[in-house]
Amino acid sequence: MASHVTHNAYGKHGVRISKVRRPRTAPPNKERHEFVEVTADVELQGDFEAAFTQGDNRQVVATDTCKNTLYVLAKDHPLDSIESFGIAVCAHFLGRYDHVAQVEVRLVEQLWDRLGGSDHCFTAAQKMRPTAVVTQHRGADPMVVGGLDRLTIAKTTESGFEDFHRDEFRTLADTSDRVLATEMTASWKYAAAAGFGSARAAIVKAMLKRFTDHYSRSVQETINLMAEAALDACPAVAEITITMPNKHHILANMAPFDRENENEVFVVTDEPFGYITATIARDK
Amino acid sequence: MASHVTHNAYGKHGVRISKVRRPRTAPPNKERHEFVEVTADVELQGDFEAAFTQGDNRQVVATDTCKNTLYVLAKDHPLDSIESFGIAVCAHFLGRYDHVAQVEVRLVEQLWDRLGGSDHCFTAAQKMRPTAVVTQHRGADPMVVGGLDRLTIAKTTESGFEDFHRDEFRTLADTSDRVLATEMTASWKYAAAAGFGSARAAIVKAMLKRFTDHYSRSVQETINLMAEAALDACPAVAEITITMPNKHHILANMAPFDRENENEVFVVTDEPFGYITATIARDK
Amino acid sequence: MASHVTHNAYGKHGVRISKVRRPRTAPPNKERHEFVEVTADVELQGDFEAAFTQGDNRQVVATDTCKNTLYVLAKDHPLDSIESFGIAVCAHFLGRYDHVAQVEVRLVEQLWDRLGGSDHCFTAAQKMRPTAVVTQHRGADPMVVGGLDRLTIAKTTESGFEDFHRDEFRTLADTSDRVLATEMTASWKYAAAAGFGSARAAIVKAMLKRFTDHYSRSVQETINLMAEAALDACPAVAEITITMPNKHHILANMAPFDRENENEVFVVTDEPFGYITATIARDK
Amino acid sequence: MASHVTHNAYGKHGVRISKVRRPRTAPPNKERHEFVEVTADVELQGDFEAAFTQGDNRQVVATDTCKNTLYVLAKDHPLDSIESFGIAVCAHFLGRYDHVAQVEVRLVEQLWDRLGGSDHCFTAAQKMRPTAVVTQHRGADPMVVGGLDRLTIAKTTESGFEDFHRDEFRTLADTSDRVLATEMTASWKYAAAAGFGSARAAIVKAMLKRFTDHYSRSVQETINLMAEAALDACPAVAEITITMPNKHHILANMAPFDRENENEVFVVTDEPFGYITATIARDK
Repeated sequence: MASHVTHNAYGKHGVRISKVRRPRTAPPNKERHEFVEVTADVELQGDFEAAFTQGDNRQVVATDTCKNTLYVLAKDHPLDSIESFGIAVCAHFLGRYDHVAQVEVRLVEQLWDRLGGSDHCFTAAQKMRPTAVVTQHRGADPMVVGGLDRLTIAKTTESGFEDFHRDEFRTLADTSDRVLATEMTASWKYAAAAGFGSARAAIVKAMLKRFTDHYSRSVQETINLMAEAALDACPAVAEITITMPNKHHILANMAPFDRENENEVFVVTDEPFGYITATIARDK
Repeated sequence: MASHVTHNAYGKHGVRISKVRRPRTAPPNKERHEFVEVTADVELQGDFEAAFTQGDNRQVVATDTCKNTLYVLAKDHPLDSIESFGIAVCAHFLGRYDHVAQVEVRLVEQLWDRLGGSDHCFTAAQKMRPTAVVTQHRGADPMVVGGLDRLTIAKTTESGFEDFHRDEFRTLADTSDRVLATEMTASWKYAAAAGFGSARAAIVKAMLKRFTDHYSRSVQETINLMAEAALDACPAVAEITITMPNKHHILANMAPFDRENENEVFVVTDEPFGYITATIARDK
Repeated sequence: MASHVTHNAYGKHGVRISKVRRPRTAPPNKERHEFVEVTADVELQGDFEAAFTQGDNRQVVATDTCKNTLYVLAKDHPLDSIESFGIAVCAHFLGRYDHVAQVEVRLVEQLWDRLGGSDHCFTAAQKMRPTAVVTQHRGADPMVVGGLDRLTIAKTTESGFEDFHRDEFRTLADTSDRVLATEMTASWKYAAAAGFGSARAAIVKAMLKRFTDHYSRSVQETINLMAEAALDACPAVAEITITMPNKHHILANMAPFDRENENEVFVVTDEPFGYITATIARDK
Repeated sequence: MASHVTHNAYGKHGVRISKVRRPRTAPPNKERHEFVEVTADVELQGDFEAAFTQGDNRQVVATDTCKNTLYVLAKDHPLDSIESFGIAVCAHFLGRYDHVAQVEVRLVEQLWDRLGGSDHCFTAAQKMRPTAVVTQHRGADPMVVGGLDRLTIAKTTESGFEDFHRDEFRTLADTSDRVLATEMTASWKYAAAAGFGSARAAIVKAMLKRFTDHYSRSVQETINLMAEAALDACPAVAEITITMPNKHHILANMAPFDRENENEVFVVTDEPFGYITATIARDK
């Protein structure tokens, strides 16, 4: 039987790096540090087929080498944003290795908040994780996608779900007052250069404001409204994808216990969970 | 600002179902049970845009309804393979709802082994999880992808990695004797009807046999050899994707402790990890 | 062979409850909500041996009944603190079931922060999780232990580790400047009644202030200093246990790459990890 | 305010080690390997108070040194059982450091099964994980506790729960036919020396046989029966603790869908879950 490799990719995943940015002009231990932590996946495509079909490794940049490279680039780069670091990583691999045709870098940032007014003490802020994916094909500009995950938000009212499709498998009742909770993920594609940090801040702020200011007729409607707010907040963004898995808070049944549950007490469940995703693009 | 929804999908994820198959002719509690457990994600695409843009839910089959449907279909279907169940789920949603254009069902099976010779006692077999993805567009045949995840395998010798690209970022030495360990994932696309259960068994058997019978010059070469073995074992399969993240077993450095470590003691790490993936297709 | 049951306990674990506190005097949807989420384990000991040895279930309050009870008590109780809720749960089970000799309730709170100025929108604050364990033996007062987990904190300098034991297995060098990072856990035992919420706030504030204000000669010293600060901050607390697993940030070796790494770039690892725990008690 | 350290312990956790046992007499790569993988926590108590109260580290054997030691001991020891390795680790630390008063070693084994008849290929067997805890106080014999976790077993019939306590919070109905599934944990204390490997095999075999051969009136009864079987199977064991969290398979409600669910289709949930534990000791 004859076969051929139609697609291949490889690299190092889960490379966790922290960096202390220290202004070197101040005396030691008196400086105001900044603390950055990222996890990076780097993945290469290109002329690597001989490794698969002939056991010929000469073109293979070892995943261990990829890892070393990420540490070195983290040293050389200010790590001021995960997007700009991703761009630098792509540029490095394409510039250094002629036989690499495409680089993809996926980054997740662990945010650290300054603790009190301390110059050098921090606490991990886990309420949201910035993400970025930078992809570059040889000869093309890098494609930059900013994003976030693990943003858990809830409305304890001003959310309903009514008049949805009715058939013999439906048992859920209409409601005009429910808890809507989600651990949202978003990613936005840049059409133009932007200050990635300030763009992220503006997008998150606009989405959260919209989340609070409307009656939600469905998760679908809320996604669209928040996406529109994000596109309004950052002209450099061409499109945004928002995914909202339901973190269900189900009204506890108090009927057997002679109590009325007026949207007060809820059973929280992880699974099964509703999953809604959409991509909303700016009209051209 | 004007915008539009360019893509949307929704459904219920993480629907966990178990089924006891009981031959109903035998007297109660004397029968030989079979025990099946699956986790299903079902995702719909179609004419759902009004929910996003106008808060109009009339076309939305609630994710709760999707969940109910999965339980009902699990009752009506023999659940003899996750692939055939996925096909039934796609057929149901496309047949029942004219405005649904595409259904995707992702399934993972928890295997249960019979315990001793018992008719009704089982133990969870966690050494591999069968997976399946069935996708169907209205008017087309279902596309069936079988697979597996969490198959952790290792070679304690007969594996090396030599003559790979050499540059200033390389620190890893050549070796002709290392531990190769991976938690592999595979998925294979059917071009024709097949007995899904026996096909899976034949594919897994062929891949594992190939894993044991060669000196591996790289993970890449091993992926290609195992893929070829799988294609040979099952003519109905058109292509297979194998992903092999390295589960590194790194030689412990005994030099400071006056001991020689002749490939005996290893430091096991989860991250960072090498990641290699390829799709190998049968020549036409 | 003869044997006997020397210890037994049972109950319901992982009962996840959320509660919306709504001031009922205001008109619907105009009120200022508070949103509380807890996960509770309840565990009973008492006269349950017949269930083990004779299959006699008459004394067994089903774990399902325990779960129902937690929902009902969450309805009846203000859930103003997990400690006070735990006390109520203990009192209920001891009061309701004469054959229960001891109740233990373990609680973890998911904190939700108000989103903007919204009356009813929240975001999950995951930087720390309050915990409580309340145990009550029949005829005795409840023993209340407050606590927290998942508080991840770091010092990027003002931390060292020097002059530790030297022998043939030591390879770690002395350092007077390292990153100290930990995901700390603490639990404090109340000797007297207290306002649990304000006590927790005072304890956390005092511990974090102490974390920032000293040069740490070891994790051990830091634990003791933070414990002393906590005891100072809350006179009702008799003793505190602090556990600090190291979240290692290991200096990346830049020597092969012609770069000097002046405490700038670190390899972040999860395991193996140093683990240090101590209990510090107020002198009597 | 004055305070004092009432308890302290420290060490290295999560030290993951694999070992290839190679009979050195055979020519290279022709030998029949054995592959062992363990994760170890080592924890020391003793004269370490000065580190906490005076920042004096001279007695502190660094956790990094503990880690080095584990690798070296894994080299020197045959690793034929986790219990015997734990005994060796305790002996080492007590013998080497006079100021250590107690050592506790907790071990978990990842079992690897031989793949086909291969001399050097393995697959991770994840259906059960052997565990061991060895504790030794200076001047006393080591206390050895063998065990297992992650043994997931189920009865699809021959299990009921009836006549349990009835009160106003009970909603669960009696049943004489339900699915009982659990991810059991067990640990057994040795009163005398034993062949740890064969003892474990005998204990597991006896417990599983008992699991299959009785009608279970409750999880409690099943725990006691399996504990008795274990004590019968291994005279060196003085007592055994078995913990059985319920992995609920809840009968899916088919009533709204005009189908009868005769114990066929179940909703599988992770939480909340019933938790039952007991310690059963051999009569003296």
